[in-house]
Amino acid sequence: MPTTVLSNIGTLVTNDPAWGEGPLGIRHDAALVIADGRVAWVGDSAAAPAADTGYDLAGRAVLPGFVESHSHLVFAGDRAEEFAARMAGRPYAAGGIRTTIEATRAAGDDQLATTVRRLLDESLRTGSTTVECKSGYGQTVADELRSVQIAARFTDEVTLLAAHVPPPEYAGRPDDYVRMVCEQMIPRCAPHARWIDVFCERGAFDRDQAHAVLTTGIAHGLVPRVHGNQLRQGPGVRLAVELGAASVDHVSHVNGADIEALAGSDTVATLLPGADFCTRNSYPDARALLDAGVTVALGADCNPGTSYTTSLPFCIALAVREMRMTPDEAVWSATMGGAKALRRSDIGALSPGFRADAIALEAPSHLHLAYRPGVALVGRVWRAGVPVVTSRGVAR
Amino acid sequence: MPTTVLSNIGTLVTNDPAWGEGPLGIRHDAALVIADGRVAWVGDSAAAPAADTGYDLAGRAVLPGFVESHSHLVFAGDRAEEFAARMAGRPYAAGGIRTTIEATRAAGDDQLATTVRRLLDESLRTGSTTVECKSGYGQTVADELRSVQIAARFTDEVTLLAAHVPPPEYAGRPDDYVRMVCEQMIPRCAPHARWIDVFCERGAFDRDQAHAVLTTGIAHGLVPRVHGNQLRQGPGVRLAVELGAASVDHVSHVNGADIEALAGSDTVATLLPGADFCTRNSYPDARALLDAGVTVALGADCNPGTSYTTSLPFCIALAVREMRMTPDEAVWSATMGGAKALRRSDIGALSPGFRADAIALEAPSHLHLAYRPGVALVGRVWRAGVPVVTSRGVAR
Repeated sequence: MPTTVLSNIGTLVTNDPAWGEGPLGIRHDAALVIADGRVAWVGDSAAAPAADTGYDLAGRAVLPGFVESHSHLVFAGDRAEEFAARMAGRPYAAGGIRTTIEATRAAGDDQLATTVRRLLDESLRTGSTTVECKSGYGQTVADELRSVQIAARFTDEVTLLAAHVPPPEYAGRPDDYVRMVCEQMIPRCAPHARWIDVFCERGAFDRDQAHAVLTTGIAHGLVPRVHGNQLRQGPGVRLAVELGAASVDHVSHVNGADIEALAGSDTVATLLPGADFCTRNSYPDARALLDAGVTVALGADCNPGTSYTTSLPFCIALAVREMRMTPDEAVWSATMGGAKALRRSDIGALSPGFRADAIALEAPSHLHLAYRPGVALVGRVWRAGVPVVTSRGVAR
Repeated sequence: MPTTVLSNIGTLVTNDPAWGEGPLGIRHDAALVIADGRVAWVGDSAAAPAADTGYDLAGRAVLPGFVESHSHLVFAGDRAEEFAARMAGRPYAAGGIRTTIEATRAAGDDQLATTVRRLLDESLRTGSTTVECKSGYGQTVADELRSVQIAARFTDEVTLLAAHVPPPEYAGRPDDYVRMVCEQMIPRCAPHARWIDVFCERGAFDRDQAHAVLTTGIAHGLVPRVHGNQLRQGPGVRLAVELGAASVDHVSHVNGADIEALAGSDTVATLLPGADFCTRNSYPDARALLDAGVTVALGADCNPGTSYTTSLPFCIALAVREMRMTPDEAVWSATMGGAKALRRSDIGALSPGFRADAIALEAPSHLHLAYRPGVALVGRVWRAGVPVVTSRGVAR
């Protein structure tokens, strides 16, 4: 069994307080040994055992790979003009999604798969070693089915976003759409997905419709996650908690009762500052959530309408600047927070036993992710111990 | 004389209204021929002449290289901890610069040059083909002299930032420092620089001190530029206009009289949203400046204290989101605007005669620079017709 050692790590973020200082479990002048795709040893660089392959990090920082728990990669089309118009003052409404539904339905499978691959490569270059991927731009049984099947070629974390917006052919008849979703779409698509998701927002689906979709998904073996409270206050957060959702995502507009419900639950609040940036929406009050004890994840929400970024480093910088998270909190939320939002216990940390998903920064400390916004700091990436981004780009 | 053709350009930004649509002079399905380091021909891709070397852009966007007119690259040390403390609530004051002065004075020439090279490579990867570089972290004759000499190894756009903050040995005696600058530093350093700069701000230098530094620089053949109105309203903008400065930079806090003075002058307002992002300062009112007819440039202001980013694409995204510039205006300001701030007529456009500094995006349109924040969209870069960033990284 070949082993790999990463030595002379300037700052190692283990995310395991048992293996270093503070909540991030930070060690300096550290080394990490990988065997069989997992972390086998963590300690001082001077004490590192020999291994078959060695990387001298020369003082660079090493972190767990980012865990991207919210992305929409199965789509076609471009909404750059809509973005420019919105920046000039036209407000965002959920209905823009229909533009992408039309383009996605018209696209071939190969075209969709090529886009997913391109965006996953982009994600990998900024350090995302696990990426959840949602359907949601088909909104017919056949188009959602091929969307989850295409997503499943690339990731285990496939989400059936069965109810994103009522498609044009169901205009004014959202209850009829929900009935079709529950009776036909979910039974057909569930075997290809792990998660069920719904956009619970005015202009999309109300509480009762969202409840029907999620409970039907649960009955078919899927675990719920919810898009909620993005554009205004609403029932999304409390519905997510009530149904034991793994995560409620956006959470930009909440009240005290929402925060209290989240704090008393296992539901993660996944904040998506890229979407708030790209729609000029208010940012979530991350401090209120964190101070109440809510588990917070960060996601990039890559999608062609409202957050066409794959970069979690960009989202970390926004979280610090705009949401008053500390750089440490933001890094934790983009790694272990994402793992918790996906209910994964094998990723998100770099202590012995965890999958060896690691990134090396062109910087001495994880603080640089916020301190150096917009800079491509992720230099190398390993997934399950295998180098997948090297100095020469993405390896295949 | 070997020629190069770039064909199948999806969107070509020429920045020359005579060669395309609108203020950006945009052409679709275009081609560009380079000869002798300059643009020799622009037209429809189908009509492109043959050339010795060809690049098929396959629908990608091509823009003029970014012109970075404001950066501080000659320094040593790291202020990540100060950044984290500031994000936790400690306000920014100009005095943090002294931390970097201390580290820079203690560094060897090779260490400083290595940092300049590293950051210029980083800038090039995000598309900056011309980069101005300031001294300002020495603040002794010998340390400013070596700073401008090191900068001059890498760029023609060298700025003597003679008066950044009064250094510790002149604490409480800024007038004595300014006298030393005028009598000793400027005469000694002027032969190695093109520009004279001063930080006119409370905690740095007042109007009369800034006036003395700039007029002495002018007397020694340097052209003035000014750091002004970053943290509060003050005399910087009007002093810059009065002395015919090429640019006044930051301009985050201005009144109507400042805007009127700029609009009636040849002084460019160089906005540095990265600094406002990293210090949680107010952003400039770009709309008021543009609507008054002021020429606006965008810079990244790379420095270790208040804007440790080299990325003009990041600044374009901020300019659109936070300063309400249109994506077109932001792209113009980061290209032709920067050229005007450096009083250069050979760069900033891609019509015949201009230097062939060009970037190809991994995107069909220049709009994607704002539409896809945080994403490394710059794929290839040519400087004077020579490929300097390729799919394999920075070429030497």
